[in-house]
Amino acid sequence: MFTPDKFHDECGLMAVWNHPEAANLTYLGLYAQQHRGQEGAGVVSVDRNGGGDPHFHVHKGLGLVADVFGSFDFTKLPGQVAIGHVRYTTAGGNRLANVQPFVADIALGHTAVAHNGNLINADDLRRELIEKGSIFGSTSDTETILHLLAHGDREQPLVESVIAALHKIKGAFSLLMLFEDRMMAVRDVHGLRPLAVGEVDGAKVFASETCAFDLIGAKYIRDVEPGELIEVLKDGTMKSYFPFGFARPAPCIFEYVYFARPDSMVFGKNVYKLRKNMGAELAREVPVKADLVTAVPDSGVAAAIGYAETSKIPYEMGLVRNHYVGRTFIEPKQSIRDFGVKIKLNPNSDVLAGKSIVVVDDSIVRGTTSKKLVAMLRQAGAREIHMRISSPPTTNPCYYGIDTPDKHELIAAQHSIEDIAKYIGVDSLAYLSVEGLYRAVESTPGKFCDACFSGNYPAGTPVQIKPKRQQMLFGAD
Amino acid sequence: MFTPDKFHDECGLMAVWNHPEAANLTYLGLYAQQHRGQEGAGVVSVDRNGGGDPHFHVHKGLGLVADVFGSFDFTKLPGQVAIGHVRYTTAGGNRLANVQPFVADIALGHTAVAHNGNLINADDLRRELIEKGSIFGSTSDTETILHLLAHGDREQPLVESVIAALHKIKGAFSLLMLFEDRMMAVRDVHGLRPLAVGEVDGAKVFASETCAFDLIGAKYIRDVEPGELIEVLKDGTMKSYFPFGFARPAPCIFEYVYFARPDSMVFGKNVYKLRKNMGAELAREVPVKADLVTAVPDSGVAAAIGYAETSKIPYEMGLVRNHYVGRTFIEPKQSIRDFGVKIKLNPNSDVLAGKSIVVVDDSIVRGTTSKKLVAMLRQAGAREIHMRISSPPTTNPCYYGIDTPDKHELIAAQHSIEDIAKYIGVDSLAYLSVEGLYRAVESTPGKFCDACFSGNYPAGTPVQIKPKRQQMLFGAD
Amino acid sequence: MFTPDKFHDECGLMAVWNHPEAANLTYLGLYAQQHRGQEGAGVVSVDRNGGGDPHFHVHKGLGLVADVFGSFDFTKLPGQVAIGHVRYTTAGGNRLANVQPFVADIALGHTAVAHNGNLINADDLRRELIEKGSIFGSTSDTETILHLLAHGDREQPLVESVIAALHKIKGAFSLLMLFEDRMMAVRDVHGLRPLAVGEVDGAKVFASETCAFDLIGAKYIRDVEPGELIEVLKDGTMKSYFPFGFARPAPCIFEYVYFARPDSMVFGKNVYKLRKNMGAELAREVPVKADLVTAVPDSGVAAAIGYAETSKIPYEMGLVRNHYVGRTFIEPKQSIRDFGVKIKLNPNSDVLAGKSIVVVDDSIVRGTTSKKLVAMLRQAGAREIHMRISSPPTTNPCYYGIDTPDKHELIAAQHSIEDIAKYIGVDSLAYLSVEGLYRAVESTPGKFCDACFSGNYPAGTPVQIKPKRQQMLFGAD
Amino acid sequence: MFTPDKFHDECGLMAVWNHPEAANLTYLGLYAQQHRGQEGAGVVSVDRNGGGDPHFHVHKGLGLVADVFGSFDFTKLPGQVAIGHVRYTTAGGNRLANVQPFVADIALGHTAVAHNGNLINADDLRRELIEKGSIFGSTSDTETILHLLAHGDREQPLVESVIAALHKIKGAFSLLMLFEDRMMAVRDVHGLRPLAVGEVDGAKVFASETCAFDLIGAKYIRDVEPGELIEVLKDGTMKSYFPFGFARPAPCIFEYVYFARPDSMVFGKNVYKLRKNMGAELAREVPVKADLVTAVPDSGVAAAIGYAETSKIPYEMGLVRNHYVGRTFIEPKQSIRDFGVKIKLNPNSDVLAGKSIVVVDDSIVRGTTSKKLVAMLRQAGAREIHMRISSPPTTNPCYYGIDTPDKHELIAAQHSIEDIAKYIGVDSLAYLSVEGLYRAVESTPGKFCDACFSGNYPAGTPVQIKPKRQQMLFGAD
Repeated sequence: MFTPDKFHDECGLMAVWNHPEAANLTYLGLYAQQHRGQEGAGVVSVDRNGGGDPHFHVHKGLGLVADVFGSFDFTKLPGQVAIGHVRYTTAGGNRLANVQPFVADIALGHTAVAHNGNLINADDLRRELIEKGSIFGSTSDTETILHLLAHGDREQPLVESVIAALHKIKGAFSLLMLFEDRMMAVRDVHGLRPLAVGEVDGAKVFASETCAFDLIGAKYIRDVEPGELIEVLKDGTMKSYFPFGFARPAPCIFEYVYFARPDSMVFGKNVYKLRKNMGAELAREVPVKADLVTAVPDSGVAAAIGYAETSKIPYEMGLVRNHYVGRTFIEPKQSIRDFGVKIKLNPNSDVLAGKSIVVVDDSIVRGTTSKKLVAMLRQAGAREIHMRISSPPTTNPCYYGIDTPDKHELIAAQHSIEDIAKYIGVDSLAYLSVEGLYRAVESTPGKFCDACFSGNYPAGTPVQIKPKRQQMLFGAD
Repeated sequence: MFTPDKFHDECGLMAVWNHPEAANLTYLGLYAQQHRGQEGAGVVSVDRNGGGDPHFHVHKGLGLVADVFGSFDFTKLPGQVAIGHVRYTTAGGNRLANVQPFVADIALGHTAVAHNGNLINADDLRRELIEKGSIFGSTSDTETILHLLAHGDREQPLVESVIAALHKIKGAFSLLMLFEDRMMAVRDVHGLRPLAVGEVDGAKVFASETCAFDLIGAKYIRDVEPGELIEVLKDGTMKSYFPFGFARPAPCIFEYVYFARPDSMVFGKNVYKLRKNMGAELAREVPVKADLVTAVPDSGVAAAIGYAETSKIPYEMGLVRNHYVGRTFIEPKQSIRDFGVKIKLNPNSDVLAGKSIVVVDDSIVRGTTSKKLVAMLRQAGAREIHMRISSPPTTNPCYYGIDTPDKHELIAAQHSIEDIAKYIGVDSLAYLSVEGLYRAVESTPGKFCDACFSGNYPAGTPVQIKPKRQQMLFGAD
Repeated sequence: MFTPDKFHDECGLMAVWNHPEAANLTYLGLYAQQHRGQEGAGVVSVDRNGGGDPHFHVHKGLGLVADVFGSFDFTKLPGQVAIGHVRYTTAGGNRLANVQPFVADIALGHTAVAHNGNLINADDLRRELIEKGSIFGSTSDTETILHLLAHGDREQPLVESVIAALHKIKGAFSLLMLFEDRMMAVRDVHGLRPLAVGEVDGAKVFASETCAFDLIGAKYIRDVEPGELIEVLKDGTMKSYFPFGFARPAPCIFEYVYFARPDSMVFGKNVYKLRKNMGAELAREVPVKADLVTAVPDSGVAAAIGYAETSKIPYEMGLVRNHYVGRTFIEPKQSIRDFGVKIKLNPNSDVLAGKSIVVVDDSIVRGTTSKKLVAMLRQAGAREIHMRISSPPTTNPCYYGIDTPDKHELIAAQHSIEDIAKYIGVDSLAYLSVEGLYRAVESTPGKFCDACFSGNYPAGTPVQIKPKRQQMLFGAD
Repeated sequence: MFTPDKFHDECGLMAVWNHPEAANLTYLGLYAQQHRGQEGAGVVSVDRNGGGDPHFHVHKGLGLVADVFGSFDFTKLPGQVAIGHVRYTTAGGNRLANVQPFVADIALGHTAVAHNGNLINADDLRRELIEKGSIFGSTSDTETILHLLAHGDREQPLVESVIAALHKIKGAFSLLMLFEDRMMAVRDVHGLRPLAVGEVDGAKVFASETCAFDLIGAKYIRDVEPGELIEVLKDGTMKSYFPFGFARPAPCIFEYVYFARPDSMVFGKNVYKLRKNMGAELAREVPVKADLVTAVPDSGVAAAIGYAETSKIPYEMGLVRNHYVGRTFIEPKQSIRDFGVKIKLNPNSDVLAGKSIVVVDDSIVRGTTSKKLVAMLRQAGAREIHMRISSPPTTNPCYYGIDTPDKHELIAAQHSIEDIAKYIGVDSLAYLSVEGLYRAVESTPGKFCDACFSGNYPAGTPVQIKPKRQQMLFGAD
């Protein structure tokens, strides 16, 4: 009957427990994780004036964290407890109703939920819940979780009700759930998406990436473990449960390749260092003689530095990024030109002219951007162009929370590396091997989810259903 | 656990069935009924491209109809069917989430609901529904109806499910319910709020007041009867049901006194004429010798004309209204002055100086405005001031959809007419008698709801519950 | 070389001298005069912190006074002195740069100018000034006055410089000029536009209409006389000059017919009373047998009351105005209907059906609106329609500050009364005679400017110049 | 009498002559030069429909180029000719009236002016012009130029009038002047600010930096020479004049150090290459033993790469920049924390912990940011911190168009390098020598303006005048 218009969304989470500046710190933690979602941001705080009933306070908006909270009066988010969320930007489907955390007054009491990941059975659950009388207010799979909680049995201990609800969802989820007197943090049994625990001024904090901890001066303690549910009690005590049994841990390796900030600790390791390792592995696996190494900024920079260091070829800024691009550039409609990547990156002819160059990028999706980039580098005078990709060929879509096109749009799913090289117009093209990638992340094959490279999906894939029509709820656009 | 922050809201309804300009005409119908609600406006249309699945389209906003729809592109509300709603402005509680119609994808299919009136058991129903797992997206009592429908049994005929749901609600309701293949229009068993049926270009139209029909060139056919449910089928056929049994019809007499537009037919009668009658009755019941009759514009004008005509005392514009006031005037904070009614009405000294005057107003609520008005008239030179009120003393709050203060704030509930006269500073004060009012509306006592004057509530009163806390849902303000 | 896109604009003026709430009171005075201009509003205040240099502060905006100042922080307009202006709304040409008062730092010191009226030689002056090196920032004729002042000789006494500048302008002007240490108020030698002097709390106030005084509790003292320049000194002393010689006083009679608020004193007389007189004269001059008298609201109401009183025919609300219309109604583009006047006025069929009616309006300009109105009244069932106009036929455009179409668009300039009656579809049509109008305003022919009826222009007419092109200045729209 | 509130503003210029997409290309050229000014942007185009009179069209706004033009309809800027401008962001003084280009209808015809630089005698000229009757509409020194042109003699050839006007201005100026039938581009006699000429599709283009040419696919031809005025005629012919005599060319060396984009050609040379040279010189002049070199991103990156390459110390990303910072971050008011640089840059502890590091930055202004940065690096575990600055100590303010604080706020003007090192908390601090800087830019001392390092001002300094008060003009904020 209904299919959400958007299966995949990467997001960032933040929570602060027992700190006088809870909402403030949550905002800052989201700010540091802005790269994880630019579509919308929200914070929910809870205060308990003089020990009375807990009051939930919400502020949300579309756009960047600074747009939503920049001139916000934080006294409107009082209390010592807060959770927050940033949402990934996608084409279409960008509605205020989808901005998280979701909050509701349910049988279990007031409840807020923030989710990073993607459920593969959200559609089925939604249909079942509607049949039971539920009314949805958004097109987000996260709302499903809230409805499952809403049908929770209040006679049971709260944690039992929550576990019962979570047993019904399948796929990737790192979750923060805020209740009237406690909070719960969960990672799915494979630990597909990250979630770290930290501490500042004696208060517990949770974030998807540790760069959020750095900004607020918090110390990283540990990760929420795959399959772990942590119940944070009033006094900050953390009770640990593993209610979902055990399974192969499979954290997302693409967080290291592209998604996470280089200065973050993710799954316990520094991203920049691993990315530099990828460049170094690449230099060892597929060396090439050249005058200089350059990166496709910003995501390729760390690997390019690693490649340059290992290959002893000088690292240069062959491509300069216009830092004002962001999401605001709108190509003039009347233009006869195709700008594409040019609006964002400018080749530095003086550096490139007449040179043989190695260009390091993190991945190739459809190949169209790489093709334009290579044409630009040629026009800037590059004599030879050797493209090196710091990950294996992307051959499969992600169903676990990173927005990727369908398989038939992934160039490496359809074409050989030789054909890709010809299509994008380089003199040579090489990818990092799966083994090389695992070496770079200081692990061994099978220890991560590498479905985008291998097609091996640890948590299954969704049953594909044709969307019948778009649902509208309360029409609040 | 939860009490909506607003019990009372007067509103305006509009629907168009089978017209190529359905949303347009609905907008215009709302525009004509703007006086029934300035807080927000919304329209839902349904289209069926080439006989396929029905699509629901929604546009809503806070503010006046012209603000919400003035620059709206109506091609975004396609289809031959539409319903709309305007909401009354109140202090606080003005949130987009509360703007109607409410729309949802429920087990019965996509459904939209627009409501004029007030449920007295909304709070109990809400609690029960939450216990069953429902999640509310607003603080409006109307959403309750949608949740009751969401729990409807899809095995039954649709109209049976709807009737079952409506059997649970108590209080005042004129309702429009839009389903995927039909529409239903209902008035509660007492017919407290109006709802009229009309026709334009062969299409059926529904509106709270007939001034909406006038603007779009539609013809008034009849009222939806008290206790009647009309099912409008695809081809425009109207099936009539009376599923709630029969009870004393008790339409709201205050629609005639104050609320409706003078050029409307309400409950089958012209409002202006009845209002003039009220003035005439007043002149007969409580005559006074004076130089001129003047109205408190605009609501007192018709009664003042009637008073003048019957008393043979000339009608004059003793008070001039600033037509730019609207809701936008904000008194300068730094001012040492109290403007109050002065910003809206200016006495015309040249007319008033040295004169004995009759001032006709429709009602007195708290008395504070009347007091200021009288002081203004004195200052303008009026020698004698005789205030005549074209309705009986307002002694009880309305629980059926008109926003009134609590009983303890109603001056006539606490004080004698003599005391009120003294308080507001007039030489004489007289109200229309209940019998006089019934004569003026060409009826007999007991044929209308006159609870505001009599305390006799035909549909009961709500059990008063202290609000425990404010609920927030999806936090989208 | 250049012609401003707009010759004609009616406006409202306000000034407060030596009052601690100067800007506040100026705002309120503009608010009361909102009917004189809905295009834009502005206030300039001057403060002198501890006797130091005077600082000029400005706030302006497009739209209604309440839009521009409703949420404005008046501490940003400090000082005991302020002047303000409202601008008439016109199609096109509505730019922030044209909103008055105009303020500049010129050789005479900081200066602000607000103007009601229209200069007939603005175009020539503008050309001359540009040739001398002046740069204009707007398309308003008022800016010309500021440039003339900017070329003033600072060696002379200030008042001499100002008089020299004013000697160059021709046409209609009521002006407020604010300098660093004094203010000047002027009316052109014919006194075409009004300007009154009042007092509140010992402070001097100036306004176009006395309704502004009423709102702030000020007392009307006298008018600025035709040809008078009043210099208001620091302590509030007013020095009177008559530097332009003497000429036939010719205040605008149309202020009484249509433009001014009925509760104002204009040119020393109460507008409502004179308008009622017009209706009475009309009843005497062109009586007719009918069942009822109704007005085209709101401008026709006073005359209709006068007509009804004199003719002994009952006054009824045959047309009801939608008070939410304002400027915000935008006709839906996709509509197949022509709404026109219908969106603003609704005939009350119950009152009109089968009746012979007198409809009183203040004037007929193009005749198109009257035609639609009459059609509406017929459709509502009126049996006979006798239109009575409370002024003589409008046969000539105004060059002195009221926006009127060209002569060829004025129906009465091109057609006989019989033809007009036929065109608009009435059973009879009659205008008030010029003599009747003068009797109504308690004067004798020749004592007012009646150019719109007579073509007799006391201050001359502009030399018509084809606009060559639109000037843009600082392009800040 | 009057002093503009802002002496210094760096800006970017763009012009396109004879191209069907003139305004579009101008917009894109401004977009590429966004780093030169984020306060406001504007474009003026001229069209000549069928050979008739030229029409000037303007669009301007506050904010980033993409904010002002992102959703703009470019058909509103028709014509084959356009000039544009971006304005530097500064604290306060950010008013729409100051956004360039300035346009006016003057005796020479319609004229638009865009200016990069700063006049040192703007204040005197403004005073003189006001005495002559000029009225200013902004607080910008650029408007002075327009007024000088407005007093130009139209009997003379246009170029003579322009030269006469330009002879009166002193200081730094690269100017674009658009007239009805031609354009002029000028650089002051010292050539302080850049201005380059390019070509695309046969059309002439002008820009401050060649990165603008790259984006629109234009080819760099040459610079406008110091002291040169280029007159571009209808057909695109460029006539060259040197009307100001000859003087020591003194282009701004700080464009190389900090201001320009690294991928631009400025004064004929590639900025990135020279910046890398600065790092290399620095490594040679003030070497240090360390584990790694890191940059203060983004301005320090090129020099850091140069330093690393020459010193053979590995280059690492020790500081990661949050690319979403921009101008939108507003520090929460309630916070107990001081964020400062932390919100923008995060140290990568994993890279820095226990290491001896070289940190390369382009300059130190007040020292407060460097101090915070060093504290952050220490906290991240850096064992030794050696700061290397890729320019000499900044000891003097710029009066030629770069916004710098007063001398007393420049730390290097007041303190020894040892004291600065102690203050900011580094183990060692060294600046590049003046000679080293000249070597890096492949020139010799005296060939550039290095006033910020030397106090040697080639075009003089402004006579300092205390601002008496702020002028307001037309008050349109």
